[in-house]
Amino acid sequence: MRYEESIIEGRNAVSEAIKSGRPIDRIFVLDGCQDGPVNTIKREAKKRDIQVRFVKKERLDQLSETGHHQGVLAYVAAYEYASLEDVFKAAKDKGEDPFILLLDGIEDPHNLGAIIRTANQAGAHGVIIPKNRAATLTATVARTSAGAINYTPVVKVTNLTRCIEEMKKEGLWFVCADMKGEVMYRQNLTGPIGLVIGSEGEGVSRLVKEACDLTAAIPMKGDIDSLNASVAAGVLCYEIVRQRMMQ
Amino acid sequence: MRYEESIIEGRNAVSEAIKSGRPIDRIFVLDGCQDGPVNTIKREAKKRDIQVRFVKKERLDQLSETGHHQGVLAYVAAYEYASLEDVFKAAKDKGEDPFILLLDGIEDPHNLGAIIRTANQAGAHGVIIPKNRAATLTATVARTSAGAINYTPVVKVTNLTRCIEEMKKEGLWFVCADMKGEVMYRQNLTGPIGLVIGSEGEGVSRLVKEACDLTAAIPMKGDIDSLNASVAAGVLCYEIVRQRMMQ
Repeated sequence: MRYEESIIEGRNAVSEAIKSGRPIDRIFVLDGCQDGPVNTIKREAKKRDIQVRFVKKERLDQLSETGHHQGVLAYVAAYEYASLEDVFKAAKDKGEDPFILLLDGIEDPHNLGAIIRTANQAGAHGVIIPKNRAATLTATVARTSAGAINYTPVVKVTNLTRCIEEMKKEGLWFVCADMKGEVMYRQNLTGPIGLVIGSEGEGVSRLVKEACDLTAAIPMKGDIDSLNASVAAGVLCYEIVRQRMMQ
Repeated sequence: MRYEESIIEGRNAVSEAIKSGRPIDRIFVLDGCQDGPVNTIKREAKKRDIQVRFVKKERLDQLSETGHHQGVLAYVAAYEYASLEDVFKAAKDKGEDPFILLLDGIEDPHNLGAIIRTANQAGAHGVIIPKNRAATLTATVARTSAGAINYTPVVKVTNLTRCIEEMKKEGLWFVCADMKGEVMYRQNLTGPIGLVIGSEGEGVSRLVKEACDLTAAIPMKGDIDSLNASVAAGVLCYEIVRQRMMQ
């Protein structure tokens, strides 16, 4: 893989990358693979003049970074991180109050991918991740995002706390996911909002939590410790969606 | 692995199995591993007279079914499926209206595990899965359930439609997760309820959907097709939790 390239794998991810118009260098398809989704990829690739190579399973396995290529992978230009301006512009273009996700220490690429997917479906305008001790945009993230990575801007920042302080100047309120916080149904989560989600084990770190205006807890009625990080993010995002819809 | 045994892997899962009192035959720990969570497991195992063996990494890798043992795995009695009566009894014991999840064709064990975890935290009284074409209780499911499998009864049935018809006699209403259905915030999801979730690709199958009383859709504001199955299950479960709490 060349420096400026990245691999995306799996039928859903490759097909979404084609549809979204991302620059694709070439696609590798399992030789002899003839089923519907793969044929669609081949047809769409031909339409867009994207080079398709047919290779043996061994070769595909070797190229694969995730081990889950499902018979197809593509070389694309590396994922570009967006800027905060892009995120605010996305909200403005839609005529909506900004709704931004900030992830504090999500290290599992499957969780990061699933959260970007959820952010897209919940209508969030962007996802902010820290530079250190966190998953970044890789082939696994692209695959588990089911293509959402092509639509929802992801911003990488050096310091989450400083980023929060900056965005406060734009009128955003920050709500911190916190198991010991106020039950989310009782908080006002409408208006321009930044939702901060921590890692499964540690939660949101102290300094970041202190920079937030509100806390929001998901009611836990069970016998175990916590929810999966991407499920928790989904539940919180959709409480914001609900409050915005019911306004 | 003996026929009647099953392996659970990872610190969280092993530690939850010990706490919940599940019959554990023996625990394998990575030789020399001295960190906090592993020491707690060793101490708790000793208290309960569970045999602990210290082995090399190679041996642990060989025993592992998931490849994610995190230095510890345990041999336990195989997961026992519960009966529908157990589920109704769990609701009755808590003095609550039954809240049951039915999974139609969830094939990914990670999704099944995450959904059982969510069911537990959302206070559902049980999870029903079909015998065929679906993930069943394995080591991977146990690990991704983060121990919830020890608390939330899982029932395996031959025919989901017939099971729904039987439970209707107990006064349950069935709501079908359906992207083309009514927006979930506008449905009345209180009272004794069965929530039916389909697979990511296919959704709920036709016959099962026809057996349901209501549909519920998660609003999708994004550019891609769907949410991850376990995220969707979480969002729907917590809409039920919200409506029950706000009653």
